Amino acid sequence: MNKKIEIFDSTLRDGAQAEGISFSVEDKIKIVRALDALGVSYIEAGNPGSNPKDLEFFLRMKNEKLKHGKLTAFGSTRRPDTQVEEDSNVQSLLEANTPTVAIFGKSWDFHVTDIIKTTLDENLAMIKDTIAFLKQRGKEVIYDAEHFFDGYKNNPDYALATLEAAKLGGADWLVLCETNGGAFPDEVYNITKKVCEKLGVKVGIHCHNDGGMAVANTIMAVEAGATQVQGTYIGFGERCGNVNLTTVIANLQLKREKQCILEDQLVNLASTARMVAEISNVSMNEREPYIGNSAFAHKGGMHIDGVTKAPHSFEHIDPRRVGNKRRILMSEVSGKSTVLSKIQKVNPNIKKNSPETQKLIERLKELEYEGYQFEGAESTFELIIRKHLGKYKPFFELKYYKIIEENHARGENTSSALVKINVDGKDEMTVAEGVGPVNALDKALRKALETFYPQLTEVYLTDYKVRVLDTTETTDAKVRVLIESTDGYNLWTTVGVSTDIIEASWIALVDSIEYKLIKDIEEKVRAYI
Amino acid sequence: MNKKIEIFDSTLRDGAQAEGISFSVEDKIKIVRALDALGVSYIEAGNPGSNPKDLEFFLRMKNEKLKHGKLTAFGSTRRPDTQVEEDSNVQSLLEANTPTVAIFGKSWDFHVTDIIKTTLDENLAMIKDTIAFLKQRGKEVIYDAEHFFDGYKNNPDYALATLEAAKLGGADWLVLCETNGGAFPDEVYNITKKVCEKLGVKVGIHCHNDGGMAVANTIMAVEAGATQVQGTYIGFGERCGNVNLTTVIANLQLKREKQCILEDQLVNLASTARMVAEISNVSMNEREPYIGNSAFAHKGGMHIDGVTKAPHSFEHIDPRRVGNKRRILMSEVSGKSTVLSKIQKVNPNIKKNSPETQKLIERLKELEYEGYQFEGAESTFELIIRKHLGKYKPFFELKYYKIIEENHARGENTSSALVKINVDGKDEMTVAEGVGPVNALDKALRKALETFYPQLTEVYLTDYKVRVLDTTETTDAKVRVLIESTDGYNLWTTVGVSTDIIEASWIALVDSIEYKLIKDIEEKVRAYI
Repeated sequence: MNKKIEIFDSTLRDGAQAEGISFSVEDKIKIVRALDALGVSYIEAGNPGSNPKDLEFFLRMKNEKLKHGKLTAFGSTRRPDTQVEEDSNVQSLLEANTPTVAIFGKSWDFHVTDIIKTTLDENLAMIKDTIAFLKQRGKEVIYDAEHFFDGYKNNPDYALATLEAAKLGGADWLVLCETNGGAFPDEVYNITKKVCEKLGVKVGIHCHNDGGMAVANTIMAVEAGATQVQGTYIGFGERCGNVNLTTVIANLQLKREKQCILEDQLVNLASTARMVAEISNVSMNEREPYIGNSAFAHKGGMHIDGVTKAPHSFEHIDPRRVGNKRRILMSEVSGKSTVLSKIQKVNPNIKKNSPETQKLIERLKELEYEGYQFEGAESTFELIIRKHLGKYKPFFELKYYKIIEENHARGENTSSALVKINVDGKDEMTVAEGVGPVNALDKALRKALETFYPQLTEVYLTDYKVRVLDTTETTDAKVRVLIESTDGYNLWTTVGVSTDIIEASWIALVDSIEYKLIKDIEEKVRAYI
Repeated sequence: MNKKIEIFDSTLRDGAQAEGISFSVEDKIKIVRALDALGVSYIEAGNPGSNPKDLEFFLRMKNEKLKHGKLTAFGSTRRPDTQVEEDSNVQSLLEANTPTVAIFGKSWDFHVTDIIKTTLDENLAMIKDTIAFLKQRGKEVIYDAEHFFDGYKNNPDYALATLEAAKLGGADWLVLCETNGGAFPDEVYNITKKVCEKLGVKVGIHCHNDGGMAVANTIMAVEAGATQVQGTYIGFGERCGNVNLTTVIANLQLKREKQCILEDQLVNLASTARMVAEISNVSMNEREPYIGNSAFAHKGGMHIDGVTKAPHSFEHIDPRRVGNKRRILMSEVSGKSTVLSKIQKVNPNIKKNSPETQKLIERLKELEYEGYQFEGAESTFELIIRKHLGKYKPFFELKYYKIIEENHARGENTSSALVKINVDGKDEMTVAEGVGPVNALDKALRKALETFYPQLTEVYLTDYKVRVLDTTETTDAKVRVLIESTDGYNLWTTVGVSTDIIEASWIALVDSIEYKLIKDIEEKVRAYI
């Protein structure tokens, strides 16, 4: 069996066909660099013939040297009844100036006759001619056999004949595409095995997830002899998406001794996923295997007890191997011991049966009922513990804030915030404008507090999230605001809930500032000891 | 092969162990009824021994008659070195008063010795005793063999001995649990096959998704002879979640001729998923196979061309069979024909090569660049088309709006909005209070407009969503607000983008109202023709 599996990433091509995805040229360049750093073999980055933005991207890439990945342009076989030399899409493929091109052709007889409306023989000629033309111009050619499995199930002889045509044209790779995504792992295994035995050319696999089995189908194709895996990095693509490459890479490299990306880059699997998600402007599915925030998050009491005694009791791999981490969640099902460990960070003398522990668990449940969630906002939970244990003093007193928002027509808009606070008997009143009411409030509050606490100039927000909690209530629904802050050294997250987004943001902002000021005092105390 | 597959839904038990999930008793009752209506065989609804809220739920359910599903309480084998009669968890199981109980026990020798710290023999006794005790009390007993596959791989003889103990105790079902979620389909198939051949008792399968293969693992276990499938309805559970039952049901029932739920209920698969997501307060993963909004959404030009000619060219099943629908998305990769079809709804005389078509495509791209997305907000896109084609007149002129928000301390908070508009030369000024600034603005605007357009009293909002677009910019980032409205007959969605959440909401609100007023005029015009 071959140890090396070539990873072919199509985030920037098939991924761009996902609902909600639209890449700028800059976005694409950032993603290419990230994938190249991991050691992905092929980076399919666009369709120059159908999309002028993609052609611009390939021209921008001409002077970029990649370390590991071969930049790949995507296109199709020539049109029916034309000369390949005169086909403008094929010409665009050459203009893209990449070492590798991927072209797709039809394997399913019904698609030939009913969709592109040509003869079965002309389709074979289109495949062979186009590949031969690109090979003569020095390209590495990857042939994507679209709908191969559906085609094979309908007419195996014809589907195999299309692969023979590609082989005759000189294709370097024959990639079997499970385009409609509905096949089962046993089918994919059996058909791939037949092709590998019969064709004697390197074979790849390209799966979609319409039956929820893209990962398994891909793995089974590799078991059957495929040595190239196509997919998108975090799985988005047409309809239900392409196979998620992060899952395939981790499965094959950690459990089947294959080499997919550079061994020392496996620890960057999760952070690269988050980067791709951010650039693509999609929310990560946090339950995603290996890379999601919840992938190693334990909530049930017996699970937490188990991983505390022996990690592999409830973890299939060590999360650090893919750059992820274990998380112990706090909630009504997680049991006292989790809450207790948070309490003991503030006061180590409190025990499981102390009355404070019970009171705090009850308070936690009440707040969860109101819409709070502390699983992602442990700094707010620490402040709640401190308030209960008397390990807290307010750093300022709010007299009031007022927001004035005026709009005279679309486009002319001002948001201002007035804040009046009192610190140790001294009033301070500030006003600030912002691009919206929360931004104005954030600025005004900092301006007022920096007079007393100059270290707050170091603090800035790194994330701001809004979740509408009860969508049946629409604009009078509750919202939960999560704020992530940093002072350049530490990162902390706070939460606020209210029916009013400004108030929810205020609660989270105040917690963020108070948390920073408490940590600074603790730091000083430690320095004295 | 057995045609009937018993579906065992654990949304309310294993699903409750997912990050972010917390059910009220009312939530649970709604979900039980929805699952029962589909024809699910077993509804595992809680762990009465570990969670008092769950016991309350079971007591509430005593008078509820289910049509198809057997309510199931979950617990564990007795503790080591105790009498089963004296085990409080086992007692709670009886108190739950369900026809069926599911209890888990240990199959993996390492868990016996290192996690629950007892002897291998005592563990066998715990399994046998507990099952025998529950059988004597008339219960149907489902035995969940936790970590069965990891246990079998480590020590096959002992893993099989635990199943023999369960069989001796009288278990009605032996369910093989792939608890840590990291197994491969071939392993699951082979081990399940061995158990089915050896034990001669009905076998079930319970998979987790840590390797992204829970669906395939489940399907392969069914191929190997399992006739009960455990999972959660939309896949949430510990860590990466349990197998998603909607995918398994659709795969088995549509493609492998199994009967999982009532045949005439398959069309409710998608709507029940959305209902479970709403009650559970989680966002659906819209790329979810079969049930997601994107599952049959086509974006690439060639895909759209294909499904227009023949649906099965790019769809593995007819989406209507599971209550979903085809969607054709508008975007830069979807090609002119999609945009054209929207334009022709407003003016059928405009053709593909008309200058208006090109201008609108450019405007669409500009707006997408600013952060708009029309894939889910086609009413706003229709208004843009109308404005470009001169098929629009404003229904009112905004003079100004002002928002005043005051907060004197946490908890004392007022939001008021002033709106001044002009309709046909007549000014109208209103003021309203709301639970937040957007709600106040919504109320004030409607109050002003209802004087002129009384039909707006029928309109109410059914959804309000906020998405922070660029999280690196935090509180001065752009937000996109999506508003879904209804007048009781139609449902429409509009969108607004701004750095200011109030302004973004305003844009979407105005579009929602104008869309309604335009549709009313069209309706009247049609009535006259």
